[in-house]
Amino acid sequence: MKFIDGGVCAAKGFAASGVHCGVRRNHSKRDLALIYSEARCAAAAVYTRNLVKGAPIAVDRANLADGYAQAVVCNSGNANTCNANGVEIAEGMCELTAKALNIDPKDVIVSSTGVIGQPMTLDPFVTGIPAAAAALGPNHGDAAEAILTTDTHAKEVAVSFELGGVECRMGGMAKGSGMIHPNMATMLVFITTDAAVSPAMLQKALSDVVDYTFNMVSVDGDTSTNDTCAVLANGMAGNLPVAEDGEDYEAFRAALYEVMRGLSREIAGDGEGATKLLECTVRGAWDLVTARVAAKAVICSSLVKAAMFGADANWGRVLCALGYCGRDIDVTKIDMDFASAAGRIAMCRSGAGVEFSEDEAKKILLEREIHIEVNLNAGEAEATAWGCDLTYDYVRINGDYRT
Amino acid sequence: MKFIDGGVCAAKGFAASGVHCGVRRNHSKRDLALIYSEARCAAAAVYTRNLVKGAPIAVDRANLADGYAQAVVCNSGNANTCNANGVEIAEGMCELTAKALNIDPKDVIVSSTGVIGQPMTLDPFVTGIPAAAAALGPNHGDAAEAILTTDTHAKEVAVSFELGGVECRMGGMAKGSGMIHPNMATMLVFITTDAAVSPAMLQKALSDVVDYTFNMVSVDGDTSTNDTCAVLANGMAGNLPVAEDGEDYEAFRAALYEVMRGLSREIAGDGEGATKLLECTVRGAWDLVTARVAAKAVICSSLVKAAMFGADANWGRVLCALGYCGRDIDVTKIDMDFASAAGRIAMCRSGAGVEFSEDEAKKILLEREIHIEVNLNAGEAEATAWGCDLTYDYVRINGDYRT
Repeated sequence: MKFIDGGVCAAKGFAASGVHCGVRRNHSKRDLALIYSEARCAAAAVYTRNLVKGAPIAVDRANLADGYAQAVVCNSGNANTCNANGVEIAEGMCELTAKALNIDPKDVIVSSTGVIGQPMTLDPFVTGIPAAAAALGPNHGDAAEAILTTDTHAKEVAVSFELGGVECRMGGMAKGSGMIHPNMATMLVFITTDAAVSPAMLQKALSDVVDYTFNMVSVDGDTSTNDTCAVLANGMAGNLPVAEDGEDYEAFRAALYEVMRGLSREIAGDGEGATKLLECTVRGAWDLVTARVAAKAVICSSLVKAAMFGADANWGRVLCALGYCGRDIDVTKIDMDFASAAGRIAMCRSGAGVEFSEDEAKKILLEREIHIEVNLNAGEAEATAWGCDLTYDYVRINGDYRT
Repeated sequence: MKFIDGGVCAAKGFAASGVHCGVRRNHSKRDLALIYSEARCAAAAVYTRNLVKGAPIAVDRANLADGYAQAVVCNSGNANTCNANGVEIAEGMCELTAKALNIDPKDVIVSSTGVIGQPMTLDPFVTGIPAAAAALGPNHGDAAEAILTTDTHAKEVAVSFELGGVECRMGGMAKGSGMIHPNMATMLVFITTDAAVSPAMLQKALSDVVDYTFNMVSVDGDTSTNDTCAVLANGMAGNLPVAEDGEDYEAFRAALYEVMRGLSREIAGDGEGATKLLECTVRGAWDLVTARVAAKAVICSSLVKAAMFGADANWGRVLCALGYCGRDIDVTKIDMDFASAAGRIAMCRSGAGVEFSEDEAKKILLEREIHIEVNLNAGEAEATAWGCDLTYDYVRINGDYRT
């Protein structure tokens, strides 16, 4: 497997575009993304578990019930959530897309992101969707840009890999930034591949990998109403279709993991206001659930996040988070290190603090990517979670998001 | 029942003091509080459920096993948590206190608050505790000040009430500010009363009321390692002892509720960096657990908290928090208003936004105390939770707490 360029257009047969259609008032901001596959695709998706759900999710569930899709349409600037006419708008977006691309409206995946409960009309899409269709090409960057909200940069990852000796490609794009605490999916992620995979195996791989990747990310503990992660596989690579467990499935799953892990780290590192990516690995757990819950508790702690912003080696806050995470942990066995590109330093052994150099710790914590490494010394399970620091800018961005 | 002055010295037979003993380097900051009762007291306490616990909690559990106590000693500046010699220090503090007051060391409640995992010695207490004993008097304000950390002001509430025609008094002090998300107790709260109550009924009242008060407070979602709430009842009011359920127990419970509710609001309103007190009331819930979980999810949401800081009527974030709180809520039935001293405004009816005046909403949200009122329209249960806004100062305080 190797990392390549091309985002959602890296795989054969996929084209994309990103245009300004007018959902946003700012004319210089793209607000409509389109992804199209020449061939009909096996498709799978996971959605938020928030009971308040964006209207597009209901439409996507219906459209993906048969396991196939051919296009994705997504706007930013309005979440199409808690609007009385939400389903009507989402279905209208699918119909406009289907007409522009000459495909079945049931083969369109629709998403929206932005403010909740803001009135919305179809008007911007009537001209916007045909314009996006006309702009389709290898424009993965435009599409990745058009789905952003408070993100500071586009998020794309792509890989090439082999299935049965045939080269396949897979690429994805994501938006993250705020209201990021995915539960079964993350904000918005679209992944394309030219591998041939059955809808059932595609859903299986996605549902499995999401628990190791997006569900281990938190920016602010708020599970969004619109989280969606969708994968399209058009089979144009020509590999023997992956339709059951085995070596090819494992290779496909490994590629999907790399793309989703890369996008997870991008989302965490570009969390609202973030200056640092935090990666917490919990090893030596009794079981996987404990490792996951513990790692996530650490990267969710406001106090840990603020300490990391200040490059303050306040390791007691990490221990505190492990202590309240709700799993049965023997705190007297916990070892903890901080690490980064600048080195590694021990903070705690067997639950008690060890002497350390404040200067050395500060040097390590001033880096852009910080690793918090915990060993519970109680078993073999491990998990990694990704988050970001809590900064003045998070408060600034969210104190006045709508205006 | 009426509110009175006097804090922990409001009730007959209680004296208090607060001095600087040297745990903190800053000589102008009191860091040692003492509360003493002339008569031995029925005593009850609740503690943090964090698995990482301050050493004083183990000592208090042992000392309160018999249901009696006569003094409280508490330092700020060091949490005495995750130190190898923690229990030794806590027991030493009890012994020094007992000697200075000529009481049994088992009748001392000991607490510590400050940084976790900071080395600690008994040295400051060897002269500090006798000095605090010599300073005992009606000095409730000094004691309330000595237990503070990042709090901006002392927190005291006192009431007078009648039991069987006899006037009783009850007063409490608290520290809050950061790492505040109590689970069975809050940071540090000490309550004194001259009512005569049996240890069992005292514990019953405390355990009941804490679920309606401190356990409904969150500043930052971090459950501290040292949370303790202790009540001392010395019986000096001369009422017929409360030893069973009935009218007197209810009157005592009502007084305890007022003191604990008042301190809860003080803690939330003085959360680290806070400029506003948030009070979320969820009505019409199917059951009490749902009302509590839903109200707490709202006041815990970083996005809601930041929006309140910016006086931004972003009600979709409240709906989002209700949607991910984990209880089975019919989101299409939710009504929501914002209210304050400046008025009341409807935000959402039956789960969908209603038109509102942004100017009017801004005026309401610019107040110091904001009420978020939710009706789930699904039953009769209700609950109230208290929190605060998320501000630049929270980040500043916690980005560099130790230095």
